[in-house]
Amino acid sequence: MTATPAPRRRGRPARTDTEEGPGARERILAAARAEFARHGYDKASIRGIAKGAGVDPALVHHYFGPKEKIFAAAVEVDFAPALEAPAVVVASGREQVGQRLTSFFLQLWEDPVSREPLLAIVRSAVANETAATVFRDLVSSRLMLRIADELDVPEAGLRSELAAAQLVGVTMLRYVIKVEPLASADLDQVVALVAPAVQRHLAGD
Amino acid sequence: MTATPAPRRRGRPARTDTEEGPGARERILAAARAEFARHGYDKASIRGIAKGAGVDPALVHHYFGPKEKIFAAAVEVDFAPALEAPAVVVASGREQVGQRLTSFFLQLWEDPVSREPLLAIVRSAVANETAATVFRDLVSSRLMLRIADELDVPEAGLRSELAAAQLVGVTMLRYVIKVEPLASADLDQVVALVAPAVQRHLAGD
Repeated sequence: MTATPAPRRRGRPARTDTEEGPGARERILAAARAEFARHGYDKASIRGIAKGAGVDPALVHHYFGPKEKIFAAAVEVDFAPALEAPAVVVASGREQVGQRLTSFFLQLWEDPVSREPLLAIVRSAVANETAATVFRDLVSSRLMLRIADELDVPEAGLRSELAAAQLVGVTMLRYVIKVEPLASADLDQVVALVAPAVQRHLAGD
Repeated sequence: MTATPAPRRRGRPARTDTEEGPGARERILAAARAEFARHGYDKASIRGIAKGAGVDPALVHHYFGPKEKIFAAAVEVDFAPALEAPAVVVASGREQVGQRLTSFFLQLWEDPVSREPLLAIVRSAVANETAATVFRDLVSSRLMLRIADELDVPEAGLRSELAAAQLVGVTMLRYVIKVEPLASADLDQVVALVAPAVQRHLAGD
């Protein structure tokens, strides 16, 4: 993202430098992430995002468009660490892919700094169809298709999603619903038990 | 549950037969399930439940107590089909348990009649900590502990939850987020690919 200011359009009211300075877009994006994390997609509002960024609501719309586009931009930032997963698959080699991907994904959820934004996205996507669509498109295009491209198995697309399903289910039960003994189990033990299932989905038997 | 009316307490105002008749508890429970399904745990209200049942809010509290207790009663009814899972495990035998449990669980989600109440519970549990606690306690005591009791493997509790995680993740990606190709894949194909992972969690390698 460059910070080059867009040329001023005819008909838009003049704004102060503070509002439209080079940092405005970044401030709006940060405020949007906070707003969606705090209130979820349903209850988040462009007005709330504008207030958080200290700008006029029209400027939020000018930079990002309607609420689902702002959500997409916010999810892209919050989900950025998870988007490293295809690189992990590429770097792992066939024998290690289950172990490395399981360890990578659960580490993201183990650390509250990366967990909280992911949790906020999942909550929004489960609660709201529009948020689910935005999330699905990102996960498909930036994650699952890329991982499937690296796999040399029949039904690579389906298999990569079943591996993802195993990991998503573990995060749901361990970090969201917090079912015991899974919620308190040692991370290494969980990885050791989950990795073979992920390995078999991704690499075949 | 018997329909024997509770003895009238001193100090409570007299009510009409319509309000307190033998069907009142059942009407309240049905209204509660509809209210939680429509609005989620957060936004559901005792007032809304009372209105749906055609009774005074005090009667809702009299029968069920505070909101989380009403939610627990509603979840118990909506989740009843899933609570057959331990019986499926018992009936399956060691060789067939992955196949039978996977098929049983995904069939519940395939049918909109059983899917919609389950989806409403999951949405409430993901969005709200109190709802998650109610759901967790039910899943632990009525589902996971009973399945673990039937398994003759080390770490049976943890392993039964990892099997559940595989199934929960598939339902999340297939029925909630609707990621392709998983969302449109033939059910038999999905069961065939998922069952071995569930089998290995439950029965060991």
